Amino acid sequence: MSKVGVIMGSKSDLPVMQDAIDILKEFNIEVEVDIVSAHRTPEKLFDYAKNAHTRGIQVIIAGAGGAAHLPGMVASLSPLPIIGVPVKSSNSIDGWDSVLSILQMPGGVPVATVALNGAKNAGILAAQIIGSSNPTVLDKIVHYKEGLKQVVLETAKQL
Amino acid sequence: MSKVGVIMGSKSDLPVMQDAIDILKEFNIEVEVDIVSAHRTPEKLFDYAKNAHTRGIQVIIAGAGGAAHLPGMVASLSPLPIIGVPVKSSNSIDGWDSVLSILQMPGGVPVATVALNGAKNAGILAAQIIGSSNPTVLDKIVHYKEGLKQVVLETAKQL
Amino acid sequence: MSKVGVIMGSKSDLPVMQDAIDILKEFNIEVEVDIVSAHRTPEKLFDYAKNAHTRGIQVIIAGAGGAAHLPGMVASLSPLPIIGVPVKSSNSIDGWDSVLSILQMPGGVPVATVALNGAKNAGILAAQIIGSSNPTVLDKIVHYKEGLKQVVLETAKQL
Amino acid sequence: MSKVGVIMGSKSDLPVMQDAIDILKEFNIEVEVDIVSAHRTPEKLFDYAKNAHTRGIQVIIAGAGGAAHLPGMVASLSPLPIIGVPVKSSNSIDGWDSVLSILQMPGGVPVATVALNGAKNAGILAAQIIGSSNPTVLDKIVHYKEGLKQVVLETAKQL
Amino acid sequence: MSKVGVIMGSKSDLPVMQDAIDILKEFNIEVEVDIVSAHRTPEKLFDYAKNAHTRGIQVIIAGAGGAAHLPGMVASLSPLPIIGVPVKSSNSIDGWDSVLSILQMPGGVPVATVALNGAKNAGILAAQIIGSSNPTVLDKIVHYKEGLKQVVLETAKQL
Amino acid sequence: MSKVGVIMGSKSDLPVMQDAIDILKEFNIEVEVDIVSAHRTPEKLFDYAKNAHTRGIQVIIAGAGGAAHLPGMVASLSPLPIIGVPVKSSNSIDGWDSVLSILQMPGGVPVATVALNGAKNAGILAAQIIGSSNPTVLDKIVHYKEGLKQVVLETAKQL
Amino acid sequence: MSKVGVIMGSKSDLPVMQDAIDILKEFNIEVEVDIVSAHRTPEKLFDYAKNAHTRGIQVIIAGAGGAAHLPGMVASLSPLPIIGVPVKSSNSIDGWDSVLSILQMPGGVPVATVALNGAKNAGILAAQIIGSSNPTVLDKIVHYKEGLKQVVLETAKQL
Amino acid sequence: MSKVGVIMGSKSDLPVMQDAIDILKEFNIEVEVDIVSAHRTPEKLFDYAKNAHTRGIQVIIAGAGGAAHLPGMVASLSPLPIIGVPVKSSNSIDGWDSVLSILQMPGGVPVATVALNGAKNAGILAAQIIGSSNPTVLDKIVHYKEGLKQVVLETAKQL
Repeated sequence: MSKVGVIMGSKSDLPVMQDAIDILKEFNIEVEVDIVSAHRTPEKLFDYAKNAHTRGIQVIIAGAGGAAHLPGMVASLSPLPIIGVPVKSSNSIDGWDSVLSILQMPGGVPVATVALNGAKNAGILAAQIIGSSNPTVLDKIVHYKEGLKQVVLETAKQL
Repeated sequence: MSKVGVIMGSKSDLPVMQDAIDILKEFNIEVEVDIVSAHRTPEKLFDYAKNAHTRGIQVIIAGAGGAAHLPGMVASLSPLPIIGVPVKSSNSIDGWDSVLSILQMPGGVPVATVALNGAKNAGILAAQIIGSSNPTVLDKIVHYKEGLKQVVLETAKQL
Repeated sequence: MSKVGVIMGSKSDLPVMQDAIDILKEFNIEVEVDIVSAHRTPEKLFDYAKNAHTRGIQVIIAGAGGAAHLPGMVASLSPLPIIGVPVKSSNSIDGWDSVLSILQMPGGVPVATVALNGAKNAGILAAQIIGSSNPTVLDKIVHYKEGLKQVVLETAKQL
Repeated sequence: MSKVGVIMGSKSDLPVMQDAIDILKEFNIEVEVDIVSAHRTPEKLFDYAKNAHTRGIQVIIAGAGGAAHLPGMVASLSPLPIIGVPVKSSNSIDGWDSVLSILQMPGGVPVATVALNGAKNAGILAAQIIGSSNPTVLDKIVHYKEGLKQVVLETAKQL
Repeated sequence: MSKVGVIMGSKSDLPVMQDAIDILKEFNIEVEVDIVSAHRTPEKLFDYAKNAHTRGIQVIIAGAGGAAHLPGMVASLSPLPIIGVPVKSSNSIDGWDSVLSILQMPGGVPVATVALNGAKNAGILAAQIIGSSNPTVLDKIVHYKEGLKQVVLETAKQL
Repeated sequence: MSKVGVIMGSKSDLPVMQDAIDILKEFNIEVEVDIVSAHRTPEKLFDYAKNAHTRGIQVIIAGAGGAAHLPGMVASLSPLPIIGVPVKSSNSIDGWDSVLSILQMPGGVPVATVALNGAKNAGILAAQIIGSSNPTVLDKIVHYKEGLKQVVLETAKQL
Repeated sequence: MSKVGVIMGSKSDLPVMQDAIDILKEFNIEVEVDIVSAHRTPEKLFDYAKNAHTRGIQVIIAGAGGAAHLPGMVASLSPLPIIGVPVKSSNSIDGWDSVLSILQMPGGVPVATVALNGAKNAGILAAQIIGSSNPTVLDKIVHYKEGLKQVVLETAKQL
Repeated sequence: MSKVGVIMGSKSDLPVMQDAIDILKEFNIEVEVDIVSAHRTPEKLFDYAKNAHTRGIQVIIAGAGGAAHLPGMVASLSPLPIIGVPVKSSNSIDGWDSVLSILQMPGGVPVATVALNGAKNAGILAAQIIGSSNPTVLDKIVHYKEGLKQVVLETAKQL
């Protein structure tokens, strides 16, 4: 069974990151949640990132704010696809620091960055990554998108 | 065999996007290259995005500049993971328009965004996505990263 | 009789877009309102944009936030003048993403962009477009502007 | 016959603004070109803007850079639709001043803003405005867009 | 006796601009307050700016928000020193539009720009301008600054 | 006779600041030029700013780049009107640091800020300040502005 | 015994700067707090900065907002390491002015800048500077960081 | 004897970082230079940062560009004062990413950030840190600053 690791730099990121967990559960994908701080628990970061792929994790979602180094450092240590969620934390300059320090990774070490506070999309992207080689999950994505469409069409009718 | 679709909004994006093609070939991953303009060939965009996953494509890399709508529109039409490359085109405001119009997708429709002009990382990310369910490709990623490390260690010695 | 289409990406854009509807009604211009999401209902977007001019619509006003692709995609599919309203939605980075992804369209596919949340001005601009070939509407614009002036002059007197 | 006024704040804006003139001629729309500086010839600005619609002009395209007040001041004085072209002049801060001082007009006085240096799109937009009530011009727009598509499809084939 | 004209684009700017009026009164400088909208009352703007120096006004303070054209247009029509106050109005993008459309004036037509919402400093600057040729007012400035110093020194003692 | 002090933080600012010197000479206003670095010669800054008004200087123009403290520190020490010229020096982040560290002065200590590299306008503003109490100089300003207008009208004719 | 000077431009900066004072006391480092305004008390600034190192102060922490000149001016006058805290004051443009006018110091006069409102980190940095030549303090830093780690590990367990 | 470690993420940062090395040598401070990439050699980063203080290094200067994680990760692993130099590398968005991902560190883990490409100031700051407990080095700083002053005073004379 597929498994996605969801980590964040601080417990204060959880209200944002919960969206990723919820949507993955909706897709029946196993989620493993942890707090891993690049700056406060660097050793745990190393252990986590080095071994995630050997423990059956297929995709890692990492959320952090401010000078957000967690997604990039996990990407430097793991061969897995890493999805970065820039979090607009209280100490952030309107989110620009979070976005740029996750997005602008150097050549060789990509982070798949989603929108500011876009944890829900991080979850969907993780499902799409699994779905790219798993027809059952791919099908769920197709249905999910069909559902999004129906909601908009319904709302439009009620206008 | 795995296949990645690489598309771009204009031929002028090719010098940037070539990096994605090259690195994917280095990983022995099949690449299909095309020009698909969201704004000039919207019908081709629809056909391409609707059918890519039925033609064996597993990941789509889409590059565009300025008000860059190609990656997001492909994401709205395809269940596959879409990687967006913001291109710093000549009509761009220092790249900010390209970055924001690819990154800031609404809930439900993610685009995995890489750095400005980061086509090489888009290629590596596509390989990692394939590698997340393909041990051979995962192994290549591990070796590729090992190679990056050796280059730095060598350079450091020569200092 | 002249007709303006007012569309938006989500019902949450309605409080902003209502200003366009109200001012157009003030000018006695027929308004047709709909929700069309570039990312959730791309087929509806296609149908809408392809056919609007054949249904008697003369101008389309499209509002969207974040990575706002609706105005630009309608512009790619319709020969009509398209007015884009950048909406400062909750997931926007202070509105910059909305502004840049509507304004910075590539050569060949213009969107007439108004100020952030400037739906009222979008409505007036639509009236001006109709007025440019319709003396009755042009006259209403002249009177409307005269009214704006009188309000300021009155307020100044009360100072 | 339809007529578009193209004005700019300084002769140094002409290389950018020429694109608007050229595309309008391609659409067989009459163009009247002038230099009108909001800051150096305010009286000429007044005369021009007050009377343009009485001289048969249907749309005004105004280009300016830096603290670009020309489009907005013309909009304050004329009932016609005004298209603003932010010019990235030598004294501009990367174009941001030009964009914001044209785009962010107050309620009641819209300027239809196009991309930075987007004079070509300003010309096309003017044609679309005329086309919204003129089937011959609308048809030309349809064919123009078809031409854009063919160029991309050809380029794609040669890849 | 010296006289300063204080104008603003809208009555909603008054809470900000009141600081200029208050400090000028503190310096015993005569103040004439008016609402002059560049975009809604352009004729009044012309009359005001053309004639202010013939009515005994020595300095004009002009406050406006968004695409703030009032200070620059007054500067284009008057030979007097014009002080511009960028107002962070409700329709402004965090004040950047107000700042840039006042500050970035072209060569030949300066506006003395103060900080965002810095109406108090605009009043002090006007007093300094008068003081540069009026020893009594210059003296008041010297005492005013001495007062600022004493306040800080007192506060520091209480720490 | 009126006198303007022109100072700059470094000799490398002279090519920009020369425009202020030239235009002031054109207005027959005496200019005293000096290099005063807030960060390298703070004592000279103190002496200069404390005494300028006692030596007959009526206005001070101060240019600096990067974290530009010179204009603000002179303003803290002198009762004269201080004009700040943000210089886009080689170590500046596109000029934003220069602009913001000159413009955003706290309440009580204004700096009359002009456009990035706008030394010419600083010179004109200094002349306008002198002209506000000197009819001869005011007259020169009126003629200067008339000259600007004639140049534009001539250029427009040649179009 | 080691001593750190903590100064700020205004008493309104104290709620932010208190974090520096608190953490230094936690490290048992003597703190001397004062209000020194670069713009209102320039003479006090001179005295303070010129003499701090002769009074046994080893590090100075200076906090200021807006056009924040205090840290840079202290750095120009003192040979000590100066830590600058950009404060997001009420008159700041989202903190950008505070950050850039502290960070972008010219060659020769560094300010050790910390994050926006990052007074706590300024205190820790001051302790690290003292610790770099003081094993007892260095040890406290090691333990402090160990404590940060334990808190995160505990929080992670409770997830 | 005092020792400063100078590290950088890539050899391409050396032209910028050389300024730090040169000025430290001018102050007769021992420098140890190395290339340590947070993203390509994370294990070397760990070893380096964990042990630097045990090898006699007192201050670490770390330069990096784009999503610059090197200074912050060293800061997370070492108790020493870490000076971060944001490098405007070729893949940077005008340097903003480099600046923000170094500056905006979370509470507990400071990085002493200097100006964009400000390696010379990083070197001086390292010397000041050493000088804060070393009178000989402090004296050198005093003389260095005196030298800066003399250069400006000489240049001013030649004007």
